[in-house]
Amino acid sequence: MDLLSIKDPAFLKNLSNEELESLSAEIRRFLIETLSESGGHIGPNLGVVELTLALHKEFNSPKDKFLWDVGHQSYVHKLLTGRGKDFATLRQHKGLCGFPKRNESEHDVWETGHSSTSLSGAMGMAAARDLKGTNEYIIPIIGDGALTGGMALEALNHIGHEQKDMIVILNDNEMSIAPNVGAIHSMLGRLRTAGKYQWVKDELEYLFKRIPAVGGKLAATAERIKDSLKYLLVSGMFFEELGFTYLGPVDGHSYDELFENLQYAKKTKGPVLLHVITKKGKGYKPAETDKTGTWHGTGPYKIDTGDFVKPKAAAPSWSALVSETVRKLAREDERIVAITPAMPVGSKLEGFASEFPERMFDVGIAEQHAATMAAGLATQNMKPFLAIYSTFLQRAYDQVVHDICRQNLNVFIGIDRAGLVGADGETHQGVFDIAYLRHIPNLVLMMPKDENEGQHMVNTAVKYDDGPIAMRFPRGNGLGVKMDKKLKTIPIGTWEVLRPGTDAVILTFGTTIPMALAAAEELQKEGRSVRVVNARFIKPLDENMLKEILNEGLPILTIEEAVLQGGFGSSILEYAHEHQSYSPIIDRMGIPDQFIEHGSVAKLLEEIGMTKEDVIRRIRLLTPVKTHKGIGS
Amino acid sequence: MDLLSIKDPAFLKNLSNEELESLSAEIRRFLIETLSESGGHIGPNLGVVELTLALHKEFNSPKDKFLWDVGHQSYVHKLLTGRGKDFATLRQHKGLCGFPKRNESEHDVWETGHSSTSLSGAMGMAAARDLKGTNEYIIPIIGDGALTGGMALEALNHIGHEQKDMIVILNDNEMSIAPNVGAIHSMLGRLRTAGKYQWVKDELEYLFKRIPAVGGKLAATAERIKDSLKYLLVSGMFFEELGFTYLGPVDGHSYDELFENLQYAKKTKGPVLLHVITKKGKGYKPAETDKTGTWHGTGPYKIDTGDFVKPKAAAPSWSALVSETVRKLAREDERIVAITPAMPVGSKLEGFASEFPERMFDVGIAEQHAATMAAGLATQNMKPFLAIYSTFLQRAYDQVVHDICRQNLNVFIGIDRAGLVGADGETHQGVFDIAYLRHIPNLVLMMPKDENEGQHMVNTAVKYDDGPIAMRFPRGNGLGVKMDKKLKTIPIGTWEVLRPGTDAVILTFGTTIPMALAAAEELQKEGRSVRVVNARFIKPLDENMLKEILNEGLPILTIEEAVLQGGFGSSILEYAHEHQSYSPIIDRMGIPDQFIEHGSVAKLLEEIGMTKEDVIRRIRLLTPVKTHKGIGS
Repeated sequence: MDLLSIKDPAFLKNLSNEELESLSAEIRRFLIETLSESGGHIGPNLGVVELTLALHKEFNSPKDKFLWDVGHQSYVHKLLTGRGKDFATLRQHKGLCGFPKRNESEHDVWETGHSSTSLSGAMGMAAARDLKGTNEYIIPIIGDGALTGGMALEALNHIGHEQKDMIVILNDNEMSIAPNVGAIHSMLGRLRTAGKYQWVKDELEYLFKRIPAVGGKLAATAERIKDSLKYLLVSGMFFEELGFTYLGPVDGHSYDELFENLQYAKKTKGPVLLHVITKKGKGYKPAETDKTGTWHGTGPYKIDTGDFVKPKAAAPSWSALVSETVRKLAREDERIVAITPAMPVGSKLEGFASEFPERMFDVGIAEQHAATMAAGLATQNMKPFLAIYSTFLQRAYDQVVHDICRQNLNVFIGIDRAGLVGADGETHQGVFDIAYLRHIPNLVLMMPKDENEGQHMVNTAVKYDDGPIAMRFPRGNGLGVKMDKKLKTIPIGTWEVLRPGTDAVILTFGTTIPMALAAAEELQKEGRSVRVVNARFIKPLDENMLKEILNEGLPILTIEEAVLQGGFGSSILEYAHEHQSYSPIIDRMGIPDQFIEHGSVAKLLEEIGMTKEDVIRRIRLLTPVKTHKGIGS
Repeated sequence: MDLLSIKDPAFLKNLSNEELESLSAEIRRFLIETLSESGGHIGPNLGVVELTLALHKEFNSPKDKFLWDVGHQSYVHKLLTGRGKDFATLRQHKGLCGFPKRNESEHDVWETGHSSTSLSGAMGMAAARDLKGTNEYIIPIIGDGALTGGMALEALNHIGHEQKDMIVILNDNEMSIAPNVGAIHSMLGRLRTAGKYQWVKDELEYLFKRIPAVGGKLAATAERIKDSLKYLLVSGMFFEELGFTYLGPVDGHSYDELFENLQYAKKTKGPVLLHVITKKGKGYKPAETDKTGTWHGTGPYKIDTGDFVKPKAAAPSWSALVSETVRKLAREDERIVAITPAMPVGSKLEGFASEFPERMFDVGIAEQHAATMAAGLATQNMKPFLAIYSTFLQRAYDQVVHDICRQNLNVFIGIDRAGLVGADGETHQGVFDIAYLRHIPNLVLMMPKDENEGQHMVNTAVKYDDGPIAMRFPRGNGLGVKMDKKLKTIPIGTWEVLRPGTDAVILTFGTTIPMALAAAEELQKEGRSVRVVNARFIKPLDENMLKEILNEGLPILTIEEAVLQGGFGSSILEYAHEHQSYSPIIDRMGIPDQFIEHGSVAKLLEEIGMTKEDVIRRIRLLTPVKTHKGIGS
């Protein structure tokens, strides 16, 4: 059939399992082909083709509510709900979002991006339903990785208590992005290998009938055993203890099994957890055999070979630079340990892990625990390196405040993917970190201008002994600069002048430095002499240099790839006014007060007015007269 | 014995159980008497007298590490570690902290205040120990309430996976602050009533020996049953599935049972969870019979009657004002529901709960789930009121960003205990909220000047239909102002002039308004005419009024009981500079960049320079000349 012509999932109702199977194959071909050009989350989506078709056949979306946890796996759902024709624009500016999006379709009832939110959202929806007296089904679909995020466990505890009707689909593919870890993961493994619950229960009933009559204490025990059959062996005891009816495990690629169990789940009162086993990358060999998570989300690839079509990077990725420098330092200082919340691949910690397996902790999707475990290590004079994405560190805000900074512990937070991240869009932009970290006492916050300074900053962070220190660095690759052989430390709270200038000063750091330098270069041609300062310490500020600049009375432009409200630029305003320097002209460039959707970083920067041309325009406004040739606004 | 002379816990080693019992009674008398004067957390501490003595006898602190989760229950520990003489200063300025504090004693190895951090801290310490090759015991002591916080569950999952040696003491008193809720709580209830695990296991072994030999499939099943004995019945299956050895339940007031189990736990490899049943308030009738949590933490009380010695409040508490107004509105709008993360009493939601039991959700200590469940409700056109303390909302920062504000949902967040809270100290001060909320797109943030405006603001929040809205309000009672009968709505983003003035403008909101008015009154006497503005909307600002003020060119003093970095004052700086108003003199008063310890709010404000006198002094500096009688700085 023509997949692009699908308007809504109603047509599925009339399909036989055989027809569904042939449609599944078609959809897989479509995904493999489309994503080979656009890139995207191929692995998770190939895994849920049958599951998604079965859900849309068995339930009635949008009356019934699907909540796709994380949301990487919602492509098939998007295809079935009339968005096939938009796949060419997937994850591009103004194009189809890579995650569920309420303004795209009435079938997207819950937006995701960060992990482990679907059960709480579902609990809210179920509560609303029961208060209104309506009867829709609420169906969160959550991976085994996301399930171990703290808030999902909080939600299980509450849902089980409230006994709300709900069908939780546990999509167990043994991986989140990287292979999963943790005790719950092992427990699921036991369930997977143990066979079916219902069968064992029947068998045991029969067995117990054959136990000879015994008297007294033992009889009572035997009774208790019979009463407690549901707690036996391979049952989903863990979930049953939490108040859920456990169903499964079910082969997530078998329509027979899926429909049988979904129908059973619909008839069951109270919360049900249906354990569905799927294979990530199913139907596309390179993705199916992936053991590390490479095929979770990809750029374009060649279909026949599975080779990635990637422009050769001029420099190593920032993640690699940081993790490999930590690894180097770990050879000299055995107190260094690394912690990642389920991102060993994204954070490029494979090298560290293989060289120092016992000093590497992948804690699973558990940002809060990761941060506070780092605090615990630091109390014992260890040197923990917490590798975490800017957007996910949001989950550990309280832990950074309460456990790390308040106890003033030597934790090095490596804030990856800081700034705009592009295709993942508004749930993943790393633009809040300066605003949510800058006001926390004791924390040093910095960002390097290039990978050479980056390696020295990592060294600085590891050597720093006066409390917590964080280094933010962007998604993507370094600039390809020459790397010093010997690592240095950078004095805390010092900036550097990258280019002298007497008419205006640009204060900026990190990714926006090349743009500032290029703008200054052009402005020079028209006689405007612009100083560019690498304000690599966002906190503490270089008060000596800042004081000097303020005394000179030069107009200042601050630039940051982060939200303006409460950001770095604001700290310059604060400093100026605190020091009775009331007259400086300070203009701040950064991310405006709105969520920034997906698109290439360059496109997004253009849209929010953060290009070289914008810098030139704004510097002109700040330096209108003098001996220039009268170039105004 | 003289409790105040105890230097360290070594003396316990030589005491018999009888002697320990008599010491326990003495300690209870000491706590009941001392706290009757100072106030404090009497209930939790009376519950852990035997447990604390047993731990200090059985282990060697500080080599062995005790991590007191939340920390309310650490008084007996403080007494045993040489701090008896400081109890007279408990929770007072510069006095003994109500929580574990590393700078108070080497026996306090982990600082707490917020819940559910101890297991992650312990995991960090255990990892450090194993890397160093030392052999200390790590013993987190966590309540059944704190155990269901998401990060504690994340930690269980990781600890069970890593199989670290660790003895988790589950202090199960069926309450956290209020009575506990949730499926895990129910599960613990089953364990409590079920009797001992070990006994059942032995009994079953015997039973299974009597099963007649059976062939084929059934024989295999019988084998599997034998292998799986540990999963049976009343075992702590939930914890065993997570990789823990479950011991208990143990009577936490019996030294025999405590020592037997602690000794067994010490010999057990891998993580152990020892389930200890204690009675909150044990040994003091009024506290022991408390069913609601009144005796969790108290002010002074009369020992014989259990009556609280409280100055009669002139006005209802802010929590009551807000919750009761929501309740009133809920009578007219059935979409209104209330959510509390384990604080129904603190948030004064009892009235709402009894009138609308089905619209009230106490989700347990689970701030993340609470926030996102509110989002889920709002997607279904409900009007959730999330009642949460400022300091605990920190736990849900990402949920506020990602689930509530990004989806632009109509959630009303009632931020209780905003500003300084006093005796609870640095872990509980509600001073970060403006800085961590102001930069989130779509969110309206406001604070009322008194309880009459407060009720109108609650009405405004409930009626608001354009996205999330938050109202912060302080700990303690209202001002006793006259209350309007009819509720109004306040136009979003509007301030009001409380007092005219032509020499300077004070922009402030909430608790600091009376101080500003009093200062203006005094300044009037010396000829300085100071305008006082109720800047009740922190976001969005009243741009019309602010523009006017900036155009007048008057010096501005902003005052906020919140951190200065990135706070309200900074938003005024940002606005001024964004609008090319480069010359205004803007001075900001607020909380400096440090954690603020415990003490009375008045004392703390004095220490950080936020008194009426400070306001007067700073306004004088801002308005030095003019026609005044030359009163300078």
